[in-house]
Amino acid sequence: MKILNPINKMQFSPIKILIVIITLFTVTLFSNTIMAQEKIQMVRLVKIKVDPLQLDQYNIALKEQMTTAIRVEPGVLKYYAVADKNDSSQITILEIYADTSAYKSHIETVHFKKYKETVKDMVKSLELTDVNLIASAKKEGM
Amino acid sequence: MKILNPINKMQFSPIKILIVIITLFTVTLFSNTIMAQEKIQMVRLVKIKVDPLQLDQYNIALKEQMTTAIRVEPGVLKYYAVADKNDSSQITILEIYADTSAYKSHIETVHFKKYKETVKDMVKSLELTDVNLIASAKKEGM
Repeated sequence: MKILNPINKMQFSPIKILIVIITLFTVTLFSNTIMAQEKIQMVRLVKIKVDPLQLDQYNIALKEQMTTAIRVEPGVLKYYAVADKNDSSQITILEIYADTSAYKSHIETVHFKKYKETVKDMVKSLELTDVNLIASAKKEGM
Repeated sequence: MKILNPINKMQFSPIKILIVIITLFTVTLFSNTIMAQEKIQMVRLVKIKVDPLQLDQYNIALKEQMTTAIRVEPGVLKYYAVADKNDSSQITILEIYADTSAYKSHIETVHFKKYKETVKDMVKSLELTDVNLIASAKKEGM
């Protein structure tokens, strides 16, 4: 009597692997993602009133800080910065960090300190509100 | 003299295609994404004060509206709903639609009208602020 080894029955042809990978890739890219609340994350809303005469310089410094932090800091997860349509010097930023220690590390980085130094005379007021994520939903790839 | 056809020199073995696809997949998933401002998008900040006694029911209705809209409406791109840590009945929602017509369609949907009807006695105040995205940055997959 011959005992069948289940492994021998599986066919790992490159074409089959290819099909599986393409399917996974497509599902990942185009399905909708609903993110459950991550209790451990640190989420913050920042409201900033900027000197209107220095708004362009402020926005440049803000973007540089955001893109550098996302690129080099593993615990800096997401930034959204928006400006009121009626007053583009009134800015709101949604910030998501992996946890509070990621935030504490962030404010000690060279790029964050450079940003704070650059904008210190541009920012007229700053309001920080710690928040909890209730829910988020997005199209995949957004 | 033999003329070489460049096509003949290329090798499309399944293994090579596999390697290319795996590389693309990895880059897509793990690289950082910096999104430029999409001028055509409609971005809105909504501040909602909810009756604290009805907060759980409100949050359920909000999540249902968000997830349904993202799933069935092509022009509803993203929602982030957060609650102040010090007062969880103070909610802020960042909403991103493909354009103003996507938003106009959204408010005529059955699921949005159902949400508005469900929460009409739960919402104490509602403040809508149209905003422009200055910039966003995020870890891929977030």
